[in-house]
Amino acid sequence: MRLAVMGAGAVGTAVLELAGEYGHDVVGVADSSSGVVEDGGVDPDGVVSRKRKRGIVGDGTPEAVLGADYDVLVEATPTTLGDAEPGFSHVERALGRDRHAVLANKGPVAERYDEVRALEADSGGTVLFEAAVGGAIPILSTIDDLNGQVAAARGVLNGTANFILSRMAAEGIDYEHVLAEAQDLGVAEADPAFDVEGTDAALKCVILANVLYEGTYTLADAEVEGIADLPGSALELAAEDGRTIRLVGEVSDGNVRVGPRLVPENGTLAVSGTLNIVQLETNHAGRLNISGRGAGGPETASAVLADIGRLPELS
Amino acid sequence: MRLAVMGAGAVGTAVLELAGEYGHDVVGVADSSSGVVEDGGVDPDGVVSRKRKRGIVGDGTPEAVLGADYDVLVEATPTTLGDAEPGFSHVERALGRDRHAVLANKGPVAERYDEVRALEADSGGTVLFEAAVGGAIPILSTIDDLNGQVAAARGVLNGTANFILSRMAAEGIDYEHVLAEAQDLGVAEADPAFDVEGTDAALKCVILANVLYEGTYTLADAEVEGIADLPGSALELAAEDGRTIRLVGEVSDGNVRVGPRLVPENGTLAVSGTLNIVQLETNHAGRLNISGRGAGGPETASAVLADIGRLPELS
Repeated sequence: MRLAVMGAGAVGTAVLELAGEYGHDVVGVADSSSGVVEDGGVDPDGVVSRKRKRGIVGDGTPEAVLGADYDVLVEATPTTLGDAEPGFSHVERALGRDRHAVLANKGPVAERYDEVRALEADSGGTVLFEAAVGGAIPILSTIDDLNGQVAAARGVLNGTANFILSRMAAEGIDYEHVLAEAQDLGVAEADPAFDVEGTDAALKCVILANVLYEGTYTLADAEVEGIADLPGSALELAAEDGRTIRLVGEVSDGNVRVGPRLVPENGTLAVSGTLNIVQLETNHAGRLNISGRGAGGPETASAVLADIGRLPELS
Repeated sequence: MRLAVMGAGAVGTAVLELAGEYGHDVVGVADSSSGVVEDGGVDPDGVVSRKRKRGIVGDGTPEAVLGADYDVLVEATPTTLGDAEPGFSHVERALGRDRHAVLANKGPVAERYDEVRALEADSGGTVLFEAAVGGAIPILSTIDDLNGQVAAARGVLNGTANFILSRMAAEGIDYEHVLAEAQDLGVAEADPAFDVEGTDAALKCVILANVLYEGTYTLADAEVEGIADLPGSALELAAEDGRTIRLVGEVSDGNVRVGPRLVPENGTLAVSGTLNIVQLETNHAGRLNISGRGAGGPETASAVLADIGRLPELS
């Protein structure tokens, strides 16, 4: 397939670097202000080097990339809330041209899911978004494989929050100190609100709810509590009882909830570090647990490229 | 789809009972000596009741079921080694008629994989066999979704052996006593050799090897050691070191190995009771862990029915 990659952060760059191995050509790459289109295939090293040295991916415009001759638009710009722009318009443009759209960006499928599905219904293209939920973990394709038999989902879906909670429990140090350490390590952003307030995990759960219940959920429908106000003493108390605390997202009975929850210390949900885990409750086959790397450039790009491998041929 | 179910044990019966919920009709059911064909749909309760009271599923023959007008043959007869009969011939008959074959039976895809694939290549039908590896755990569809990016697999794939090891470690009692308990609970067969000698886990690993390496592996290619000779003292020694023992199957670098292995006591591989777990090593996305119920009638039937949902339309 011929790919146009919108977004040149860790995920977009990794898609560019790995696409060839999966048998695809990247014919265009854009960041927020620049773009490059090469019908014969964009040179990954050139893009990475221009981005580093000059802050641009090429001398063209993002608009030129949106107009390029691609089969699949990869939407890997940063997640935005509300109108989910510019990601939503990128997806709209691709579907309007009867091309596929594969998203790593959570915004359009969390905040405007019904509109995305309506655009897809009128298009010759297909929309997939495995990379938007749980990074490398194939949650959405598993739900799809299970054929309508998943009743509910629960999981640890934010690696930054999980790293902080794991470290607080292991070292007995408080939130502010662990956050500073996580920022030094690059595990937490300079502005960690999106992760530690539960917004990122909630968006992933909203997407799961949209898929499981064919619904029209948005972030506003989620009950969200973060970990920023969690005292270290809460983790100590939990540990005395053989338990620990994880930021758990739940999608069940039509509800979406994210918040700190007590879980058994050596239990399945107590993944450590930046790992993610999802538990799927099935109608006839009990509980299924899937864990793996929930973030990272190559990890998330591998989910994008797996989606691309599942796309039907364009007619 | 119209299903013919060969085999009326726990899995075949559960397929019969759940098929309607998935939108399919069962038009025939056979055990080793009897059969019933109903073009309008076989009555599950009638089959279960005849099987219990008279030891037959109906007044017809297995041959009549093989000749019935079905879209999918579900092969759920007991796994046999070597020629993998009668399962292999059932699959051959279905593919010869350009119908699909979905297997819960490990034999044909462990012992005669290349022949099954050759028959499929000449057929209008498709062969799927998710239920043959890890019961309810969607291992093969995940490998398929990951698009050639799985390099190796490792896992705990036999619930009976795992139950015995979990109990030996938890209670400090020896193999013979735990085996007797497992037999009382119905977790182990009267003849437990297939499970405790590692054969069952090895067959599943052979199937994984055939899928991962597009190979022609059979049980003879696997290095297999069971748990029957494991002294209780080995588990005690392991526990002193924070570890335990699991019957682990490994498929890597073209090799298939099954045997007792030391694993961290609270580690991912140390699933307890009859749970199964598989770890997939991916090229760019690290390790993926999937755990769930590896056996049981409805659990295995749900994997059969998920496969049926993934079949293409017959032309």
